[in-house]
Amino acid sequence: MNRIIGITMGDPSGIGPEIVVKALTAHKELFDICKPVVFANPVILSDYLNKNKIDAEIVKIDKIDSSIHPDMGKIYCYGDENIKDVPAQGEINSESAQLAFKAIEDALESAMKGEISAIATAPINKEAFKKAQIRYLDHNEILAEKTNSKYPMTLFMTGNLRIFFLTKHIRFGEISAALRIDDIVLKLKNSNNYLKKLGIKHPKIAIAALNPHAGEGGMFGDDEIGVLTPAVNLSKNDGINVYGPIAADSVFHLCKEGQFDAVLSLYHDQGHIAARTLDFYKTISLSMGLPFLRTSVVHGTAMDIAGKNKANELSMVEAIKAAAKYAWDIKNYDG
Amino acid sequence: MNRIIGITMGDPSGIGPEIVVKALTAHKELFDICKPVVFANPVILSDYLNKNKIDAEIVKIDKIDSSIHPDMGKIYCYGDENIKDVPAQGEINSESAQLAFKAIEDALESAMKGEISAIATAPINKEAFKKAQIRYLDHNEILAEKTNSKYPMTLFMTGNLRIFFLTKHIRFGEISAALRIDDIVLKLKNSNNYLKKLGIKHPKIAIAALNPHAGEGGMFGDDEIGVLTPAVNLSKNDGINVYGPIAADSVFHLCKEGQFDAVLSLYHDQGHIAARTLDFYKTISLSMGLPFLRTSVVHGTAMDIAGKNKANELSMVEAIKAAAKYAWDIKNYDG
Repeated sequence: MNRIIGITMGDPSGIGPEIVVKALTAHKELFDICKPVVFANPVILSDYLNKNKIDAEIVKIDKIDSSIHPDMGKIYCYGDENIKDVPAQGEINSESAQLAFKAIEDALESAMKGEISAIATAPINKEAFKKAQIRYLDHNEILAEKTNSKYPMTLFMTGNLRIFFLTKHIRFGEISAALRIDDIVLKLKNSNNYLKKLGIKHPKIAIAALNPHAGEGGMFGDDEIGVLTPAVNLSKNDGINVYGPIAADSVFHLCKEGQFDAVLSLYHDQGHIAARTLDFYKTISLSMGLPFLRTSVVHGTAMDIAGKNKANELSMVEAIKAAAKYAWDIKNYDG
Repeated sequence: MNRIIGITMGDPSGIGPEIVVKALTAHKELFDICKPVVFANPVILSDYLNKNKIDAEIVKIDKIDSSIHPDMGKIYCYGDENIKDVPAQGEINSESAQLAFKAIEDALESAMKGEISAIATAPINKEAFKKAQIRYLDHNEILAEKTNSKYPMTLFMTGNLRIFFLTKHIRFGEISAALRIDDIVLKLKNSNNYLKKLGIKHPKIAIAALNPHAGEGGMFGDDEIGVLTPAVNLSKNDGINVYGPIAADSVFHLCKEGQFDAVLSLYHDQGHIAARTLDFYKTISLSMGLPFLRTSVVHGTAMDIAGKNKANELSMVEAIKAAAKYAWDIKNYDG
């Protein structure tokens, strides 16, 4: 029996509704692997269908169980209908942020009840959230806090290439000083657990180096000698199958070729450049360390093309596929 | 009439001779676009053919002019034959470094005389050079110094994606402090000239950002506000068609898609990760700012697989193709 996957519509002023509808009206293969339910205000989705003359039906539901039968042309939708006006597309506004936030909260509640097996999310807008005085920075923060998850970790996937992140939104000039042995050891351990959660029995993890040529024996930097190598040795003693530090201009290629199951990248752009240059449209993000799986597109709300029918839905399609493929039973979640 | 392209064999203890011979005995298309001449000790090449039972002829020449007719199975070779023993493969030794250096010097002399139109180089080994007390770090240093070239710049190419580098072999922790407005302005100007040299009439250049999300208005770093944007504005005033700084996890994708002709990356790994994750085997390097064009593989001597017939020659093939395609007439070189 196919799992039910929740899909949140994202910020309705951005391209969220467009990529969700495109995914569910042009990708028959999704219905072979899961039962998708969209968490959205149904008025927003109907409005999108009308404006773009798309021949599909919105099936409003107020209960999510195995009796539902989504299919091409039948978009199952869960969410309140109360709304004054459909917000304008292409501009940041707080009502859209509130609608996006409500869809996430509904999906979260449904996931925690075990009604849906995973959540695939369309993009929200940080500025809109700020304007609406919603205090969360992003999906990860909302979901981790509301589920009391201590070790959330982002995992990027582009084909075979899987990338975890040691640090994320810090200044470039502070990265070297932010590398700490205990933090690396903890995150290698968590990465190892999360890969097992995805069905990889004996994960092989590589850690990227920081300096060019992995420091070339200290000539171009000593973070490898002073921090990364000691952390790798401690992790090996813990039984983690870890390799490196390996020069960052080789390690992602080697993972892509299948020599490793994942790379622990050290900073935001290191992993982002690798995944998104390789395949910008098919890169997706998985939130690991939550009681349930959440997958996501990696692009933003693209306000500049919202409402223009120009958005590429491939990342959304990949996010739904990964949700269907890797979801686990929340009842068996072991932290 | 096809141009004559010089190919240096690289360090004979590494995979250099293997990839050169593979390129010239398995890629007929190369002979349609150029006349390749290998700069090598012919004894080394003959030995390689014998050991690997390759049916090809080494045609030794001591004069390079339009009368030569290289073809599949006929490898034209220029170089001294005096050698005691063929050096062992897979280990660093100073004799191999001397042989590699001699081939580069011969090719350089030939290029400066206008006999060959460009040089495509197989890899040399830094450690071997050190052991042989040859004081140069790499090809670029040899060629720039011996031709008195003031502004050599490395250009990586992977398909549509072209990448210049602002800094290269410096410690990661020192990158932020190394960004200087005058240096960026100079290198944008040179990048612009070098793209014109390759036949791009009105180059569009993007500069990568340093911090995640290009600093997000200063929230994640201020190098963009303090250094990169002022440099871009000065360059625009100079008539350079420059864009950015653009977040590094988008800018390489945009160039790959054709929105820019090249990206000026800020540090070694930023550009290297992009190119080599995208296509490790087909990434090549062009040395710009010399009187003649030099192209190169971007991998090393791979001592671990030397002599095992496992090396992938595709980067060497791409380097020869680029040499044939982009070479200019040294007599018209305008600095």
